[in-house]
Amino acid sequence: MREASTQVQADLDRLIPLLDTVLTTPFRQGEAQRLGEAMRYSLEAGGKRVRPVLCILACEAVGGTSAQALPGALALEYVHTYSLIHDDLPAMDDDDLRRGRPTNHKVFGEGHAILAGDALLTEAFGVLAAAALDPGRRAEALVLLAEGAGWRGMAGGQALDLEGETLHSYDLDHLRLIHRLKTGALLRTSVEIGAVLGGAAPVERSALRAYGEAIGLAFQIQDDILDATATEADLGKRAGKDAGRGKITYPSLLGLDGARKALEEATETALCHLASLPNQNSLAAWAQYLALRGK
Amino acid sequence: MREASTQVQADLDRLIPLLDTVLTTPFRQGEAQRLGEAMRYSLEAGGKRVRPVLCILACEAVGGTSAQALPGALALEYVHTYSLIHDDLPAMDDDDLRRGRPTNHKVFGEGHAILAGDALLTEAFGVLAAAALDPGRRAEALVLLAEGAGWRGMAGGQALDLEGETLHSYDLDHLRLIHRLKTGALLRTSVEIGAVLGGAAPVERSALRAYGEAIGLAFQIQDDILDATATEADLGKRAGKDAGRGKITYPSLLGLDGARKALEEATETALCHLASLPNQNSLAAWAQYLALRGK
Repeated sequence: MREASTQVQADLDRLIPLLDTVLTTPFRQGEAQRLGEAMRYSLEAGGKRVRPVLCILACEAVGGTSAQALPGALALEYVHTYSLIHDDLPAMDDDDLRRGRPTNHKVFGEGHAILAGDALLTEAFGVLAAAALDPGRRAEALVLLAEGAGWRGMAGGQALDLEGETLHSYDLDHLRLIHRLKTGALLRTSVEIGAVLGGAAPVERSALRAYGEAIGLAFQIQDDILDATATEADLGKRAGKDAGRGKITYPSLLGLDGARKALEEATETALCHLASLPNQNSLAAWAQYLALRGK
Repeated sequence: MREASTQVQADLDRLIPLLDTVLTTPFRQGEAQRLGEAMRYSLEAGGKRVRPVLCILACEAVGGTSAQALPGALALEYVHTYSLIHDDLPAMDDDDLRRGRPTNHKVFGEGHAILAGDALLTEAFGVLAAAALDPGRRAEALVLLAEGAGWRGMAGGQALDLEGETLHSYDLDHLRLIHRLKTGALLRTSVEIGAVLGGAAPVERSALRAYGEAIGLAFQIQDDILDATATEADLGKRAGKDAGRGKITYPSLLGLDGARKALEEATETALCHLASLPNQNSLAAWAQYLALRGK
């Protein structure tokens, strides 16, 4: 893991400045000033930028450049940020704290938070559609983004998750379905969009898709483990909230040891799918890092 | 106007079945059943399908076919429907009734209504990105859709409108800005996307853009006039709500006669921009129809 975390840090040192330079620029000049401010507030909250970084690394893994992946990377961060803003709303998860700061609706009000999410989702497609990329690759990336974010992906998973709060019990298959859609779809899409924008061969693209699927699962298991074991200060958001609302999680279904074993297996699967790629170091390090991360 | 309404009816008889056949099809098979149901509920609420019809008519006005415009038309109706669902939320306009039926959040709950809007917005881009169209035209249409719907367009206008409710006074320029963004941007975009998908020459495209701008203004003035003069039974939604919340409208700023005069001027402007097009009958009829409509 020491090597892996050195590689992850090197990727972050190289890519975060690239992303931060352009992430909020489009939302500085416009007539809806307060809405732009609300959009920037959540974009600037930071975090590890997992999705855009994975997108760029997947593009590089098949011989593409960071510049080719950048519009996709921005689009993914906009989609992820919109989803956090809407998930935190009182009608959804009702959270006051996100990344150690008050959530968007706490600062700007619910109306503006809904609109800031809507506008970020819209701009995600806008930035990708307007990018000077190969037209075929760009269209494929847009289709993938819609699949990953929409009702067959992230939004659908969030809806099932909301419905699950009123169910008294559901099984591991249903839990996996929810997470495959809610968290997994966009992580897998991040990797696959990078592959497409980098001009991946079909066999590379399906290997990366499978890698993305596996790290999506690992990510969610680790998220559940963290929620069950970490403190609010560790996470920068409310801890133990899953158990508090009687939500089904991997630890609650499999026990903590069972969940840790499932996490290990998912990570192994991810690494296994990278074997055929010429340039796999960073993606391998990220799979290990995501499984062992502290928040 | 008799001729105009005959033409509008003929367009509706021809195009509504085409739209209705495909409008909700994508949301019937999926894992998030209740979310799909919420999406279909608002799509099926009907209405005159003004935006998709304008898109198809603009495409035909420059020599294109309805099939070329159809993906754009669907995308526009998805965006419009999402905006109605979110606008009706308690944190926004807080409406219980829309097109004579309970609003989405009244039936499915706020969480699902937010997600249904999110998913429709996402699918709007998805259906257009996946369409078998000329790649250059498709990309231009996607960029236009993002501009019209996003923070420089509809979402930005809705944000300014929300902020306006807390202002004690603002002038005609500010009212025009809000409406140019909130309602005008997507109507103009509808016409312009149709033009682009139909392969409009630059001079045709800018004429149609100007036409779209003018009918957008006319549409909003008539909306304000209707809110001030019609009954709830006429509108299928709450009437007099603008005055009830002390909102600035065209009638409140210009008087009812002044608003009617402004409406007439905007409609004349719209018709004037059509003069150079070979096939302008339907668009001319729609400009007259929108200005005189009863809801």
